[in-house]
Amino acid sequence: MADPVFDQSSSNREASRGYAWWFSGNTFAQAADGDGRPPRQRTIIQHLVSHPGRLTIMYFIVLVVAATTMLLIPPSTPEGETTTFSTAMFTAVSALSTCGISIVNSTTHWTTFGQAVLLVSVQLGGIGVMTFASLITLAINHHMKSTQRLLTASELGTSKLSEIRGVLTVVIGTTMFIESVTFVALFPGLLKVNEGDWRKSLWESLFFAVMSYNNAGFTPDTAGLHVNSWGVGLPIMLSAFLGTLGFPVILNLLKCARGHVPPKRWSLHTKITLSVTFIIVAMSLTWFLLVEWDNPFLFKDADFNTRMRYAMVAAVMPRSSGFDLSWVPQVNEPTKVFMSVIMFIGGGSTSTAGGIRVTTFAVILLICKASFTGHKDINTFHHRIHTNVAMTAVSITSTCLLLVLVSSLSLMLVSGASLTNALFDSCSAFGLGGYTVGVAREDNPAALAILAATMVVGRLGPMTIAYSISRPRSLEAVRYPTEPIVVG
Amino acid sequence: MADPVFDQSSSNREASRGYAWWFSGNTFAQAADGDGRPPRQRTIIQHLVSHPGRLTIMYFIVLVVAATTMLLIPPSTPEGETTTFSTAMFTAVSALSTCGISIVNSTTHWTTFGQAVLLVSVQLGGIGVMTFASLITLAINHHMKSTQRLLTASELGTSKLSEIRGVLTVVIGTTMFIESVTFVALFPGLLKVNEGDWRKSLWESLFFAVMSYNNAGFTPDTAGLHVNSWGVGLPIMLSAFLGTLGFPVILNLLKCARGHVPPKRWSLHTKITLSVTFIIVAMSLTWFLLVEWDNPFLFKDADFNTRMRYAMVAAVMPRSSGFDLSWVPQVNEPTKVFMSVIMFIGGGSTSTAGGIRVTTFAVILLICKASFTGHKDINTFHHRIHTNVAMTAVSITSTCLLLVLVSSLSLMLVSGASLTNALFDSCSAFGLGGYTVGVAREDNPAALAILAATMVVGRLGPMTIAYSISRPRSLEAVRYPTEPIVVG
Ligand SMILES: [K+]
Ligand SMILES: [K+]
Repeated sequence: MADPVFDQSSSNREASRGYAWWFSGNTFAQAADGDGRPPRQRTIIQHLVSHPGRLTIMYFIVLVVAATTMLLIPPSTPEGETTTFSTAMFTAVSALSTCGISIVNSTTHWTTFGQAVLLVSVQLGGIGVMTFASLITLAINHHMKSTQRLLTASELGTSKLSEIRGVLTVVIGTTMFIESVTFVALFPGLLKVNEGDWRKSLWESLFFAVMSYNNAGFTPDTAGLHVNSWGVGLPIMLSAFLGTLGFPVILNLLKCARGHVPPKRWSLHTKITLSVTFIIVAMSLTWFLLVEWDNPFLFKDADFNTRMRYAMVAAVMPRSSGFDLSWVPQVNEPTKVFMSVIMFIGGGSTSTAGGIRVTTFAVILLICKASFTGHKDINTFHHRIHTNVAMTAVSITSTCLLLVLVSSLSLMLVSGASLTNALFDSCSAFGLGGYTVGVAREDNPAALAILAATMVVGRLGPMTIAYSISRPRSLEAVRYPTEPIVVG
Repeated sequence: MADPVFDQSSSNREASRGYAWWFSGNTFAQAADGDGRPPRQRTIIQHLVSHPGRLTIMYFIVLVVAATTMLLIPPSTPEGETTTFSTAMFTAVSALSTCGISIVNSTTHWTTFGQAVLLVSVQLGGIGVMTFASLITLAINHHMKSTQRLLTASELGTSKLSEIRGVLTVVIGTTMFIESVTFVALFPGLLKVNEGDWRKSLWESLFFAVMSYNNAGFTPDTAGLHVNSWGVGLPIMLSAFLGTLGFPVILNLLKCARGHVPPKRWSLHTKITLSVTFIIVAMSLTWFLLVEWDNPFLFKDADFNTRMRYAMVAAVMPRSSGFDLSWVPQVNEPTKVFMSVIMFIGGGSTSTAGGIRVTTFAVILLICKASFTGHKDINTFHHRIHTNVAMTAVSITSTCLLLVLVSSLSLMLVSGASLTNALFDSCSAFGLGGYTVGVAREDNPAALAILAATMVVGRLGPMTIAYSISRPRSLEAVRYPTEPIVVG
């Protein structure tokens, strides 16, 4: 099927402007009730599916409980190691939110079974996020159609489940495809690094393939081997980069590639996401080349080639993927702050990346541009950004900034960490970056709890905020007069 | 005269919504040219007055040069001390922007003459800011009237200078009145502290009176004596508090007090400023009581009374006044971050305080509230905030956040300071708070230059941004179609 969710039909246009008080409401039931018929008996599945918001929360709660349990049982931990409840819970949340902050060494603390639990958790977490974002958009489509009386309640009931199957097919299909390509691309390089050990190489290829597209930074190796070889590093980097773009962009690009559509006619969302992503990666690369080039802790005795590889990894990865933790605590203090900002901005909407999302950031910049150039409309690429979208972007940014601030201050209070480190770990948890500079520690359950909460909000927060507040605004019962106030 | 600038007339209502591309434009000349008459010969004064924006910049440049020179000449520095150029320049900028960051001990490094230079600089800086903000509003009024053809060009020429005289009278009158009351209130307390030395007490009263209303934190004493006595501390605190409210609020309150107008009918600007100010002060007090109550560096062996006095000073002062530097470096790290945020928000618009201003912060909060409650209009106190004002607030906040970030990162790079300290000093310079935790140091001219630049932007920036971008937006020549994008 052609992507049903992100097409440019007019109902969809309405939808993504005002998608989802459904997040908490009973979407389909309301639509059916609107026809004045008595509500029918519904199955539990139908009941859950009509509340994509509740379904998302249910899904993550069930999976966190399951993954924590699996990590706590003996097969997950090798003999001689013990896993505390807070470690298991934190790791489960970290994997399911595809954040990937590790407080134990993933290679030595977990058995292959334990690593498989992480792998499955990350995969289910990633697919979950992409599916639910799509489902919610779908729910709005239904509402739009039903309010236009194009569908009867019974049609709603049947088309609903089939469309959901369609979305799931597209999400899982794309994921599997990209992960398979990454797997195949990684194998030769890993086989070389592992000196012909094909069993180990197969497992590591699978692990890296899943971790990279889902942007979770768990690694099955301790040496950061992917940084030391282009053959391993490049497929991981590309896959992680695709993962940060988000589902609508990938689908739009695929569709445009099939139809030989020129870049000029890509969707506005694609254009904005790609250009901001490009700018951020270029800025990161420049920063690392300028500020970290002579860092002796980072590049001791390294040649030009190795330095470039490190700088490229450092530019692409922190946005969301969080691979190779080893070098992070050794960067300069200003670089930590810079990385925090990059992680806070995060990746593309409805992707496995986190943060406020690049589109949100872009809208804030566009508001400034419009103001400074004296324009009333917020224009970009010959299109106007709707005021509701602008207000939503401001709300998401302000709320998330407040969240990161509160989280950082709390971490400083409970762990005595410096602001740089507390901010870094907060942004890493919120933006699902996956790096840590040591504030997340096994022996500090309070800090772990704060970071786990930040991760959950980082995973569901901006999405929830966007969905719940970008509902089509009602006309005001009373419209108040304006009165000028002086700002600035 | 009744306040001509901040009345609620309809032209003014228009004005403060769209006040000032005049900041760089030739307001009055344009208005006159609009009548199609040939431009007349104008005096230099008339020429400058028609460009309030340029006039502001000229005023500050001339004063910075003059004050730097005065501080460099021998009478300013006692024998045995030397004043470097960077110290003199930084102190001049600090005084004229009413920021008040000191890098030398004001008591021992400067002679009475040097202190008098500081006093006059602060006074001229404070009056300058309040006058120019009013002048610009006035210029818009003129433009509004002239575009409505209510005034001819010659009427413009005559009424202009007389109205400017009116504004100056009100600004200087209010300032002198409040400073005199503070002076009288301070004298008995200081006489007691100084054990009957009335000469010293007179000088200190004058110094404190000017410094407190203008929110500059230079002190003529080293012991922080005003914290140790309610008789000295309370008048300073009240005067500094009045200084942070801003001219429109004080005038509106005076007018309402004369007319026995109930709080319900105060202007929207007054209501917003007062409520946000109250919330911020209450939050600061709570923070200090909770987090700093047991800080042994801050309150060694102090009784309840002293602790309360410190907490109150700490709650009111950091917003902008910056008195008594001694205790600041001893607070907890999280408190430094909290204070940075408070300084970033700053005081009231067109006051001697800095920051993004409380009204700007309030508008951001109101945007979030409107979004979360699903309203299209940004309402508060039964009034609607105009979309232009909202966009201006977003632009000011984003730009200033970026400025503080760049300033902090630069300070970290040139001085090796921690993020907490760099952020604190940046926010203090931008928000004209006047405290320092040691990043501003005599022996680091690069850090001083960064901080001085931040102060200048902090003084003129938000005002300039607001004035230059909140001009009435032109209707777009081409109105582009909207296309949905996914944010969050
Ligand atoms: K991650
Ligand atoms: K100050």
